[in-house]
Amino acid sequence: MSADPIGRLIRELARLPGIGEKTASRLAFHLLRAPDSQSRELAQALVEVKEKIRLCEVCMNLTEASPCALCSDGRRDGRMVCVVAHPPDLYAIERTGGFRGRYHVLHGVLSPLDGIGPDDLRLKELLTRLAAGVDELIVATSPNVEGEATALYLAKVVRPLGVKVSRIASGLAVGGELEYADGVTIAKALEARRPM
Amino acid sequence: MSADPIGRLIRELARLPGIGEKTASRLAFHLLRAPDSQSRELAQALVEVKEKIRLCEVCMNLTEASPCALCSDGRRDGRMVCVVAHPPDLYAIERTGGFRGRYHVLHGVLSPLDGIGPDDLRLKELLTRLAAGVDELIVATSPNVEGEATALYLAKVVRPLGVKVSRIASGLAVGGELEYADGVTIAKALEARRPM
Repeated sequence: MSADPIGRLIRELARLPGIGEKTASRLAFHLLRAPDSQSRELAQALVEVKEKIRLCEVCMNLTEASPCALCSDGRRDGRMVCVVAHPPDLYAIERTGGFRGRYHVLHGVLSPLDGIGPDDLRLKELLTRLAAGVDELIVATSPNVEGEATALYLAKVVRPLGVKVSRIASGLAVGGELEYADGVTIAKALEARRPM
Repeated sequence: MSADPIGRLIRELARLPGIGEKTASRLAFHLLRAPDSQSRELAQALVEVKEKIRLCEVCMNLTEASPCALCSDGRRDGRMVCVVAHPPDLYAIERTGGFRGRYHVLHGVLSPLDGIGPDDLRLKELLTRLAAGVDELIVATSPNVEGEATALYLAKVVRPLGVKVSRIASGLAVGGELEYADGVTIAKALEARRPM
């Protein structure tokens, strides 16, 4: 229907997650109306990110330089390693500014239904790091079925190496209301109650 | 926070309408995980659309070849021209398959508050076309304040040229419910009632 390069751009935009045909069409016509520089800069950013970004050889996070800035920062405590499933999880923790240890990115969680087993995660790299003097492994996968399964598997594999394994707490979100919290979360929060 | 090319991609994606910082970040990390080809193809589509798409010299629609396919289609009735504000409006009408005349794209509507006057629209090109034997001009701008103002202005300018000017009907949407329609639309539908 629309001239071919427009149709192609709409199809490419619609491949992005959460972007349907209608949104893709709206974005395409917006870009057509916008100055050339906007499309060009977006295209350059797309190419550049794929050319320059690779995995840090230590923590497996996405980085321009390997080892990454977090791994080469001498002020961070290398004896404490926080394991996350995906890079955005790492940034979510880093934004809080509350963690001064190092990270390890698994690039996935165990999910037998999707055919993702231990060999599909960056586990070998983690075990190599643990051999070199790590005291505590904090497992910060999400508190859902796959995240919990991954945490349990990690604990089983890592504990024999003499490394302390801990799990981030589950409970009520700060600022949330007990009345509207789901039952499983309330049960977890009661179970994990702390003396005050 | 994130490595620079990632931050740059997130910023570029967040410039798109309706895409906030969080969605942009989700899209960027999706692209990083996806095969290189997806980013490359999107980048190519972005560049190509800007290189190849221009305005049809006749109807002002976006096209690869000028005159466009619609203007060079000899089976279409050139004595009937449908005026729309933007290219997506044209595709919306064309998708219905119910119109066999030609189009003219204004690339905007009159909007004094935004400083958009008649000289900012593709009006001169329209008047030139009308001189060359057009019987009826169908004004298909949206039925909102700017669309109506543009329609009234067009009628005033075009009628003296001896061209019949008509306006697409306003009324209840087909399949909609009277109970939930807004008052102005119901009033319009009553006013424009037709014998049956």
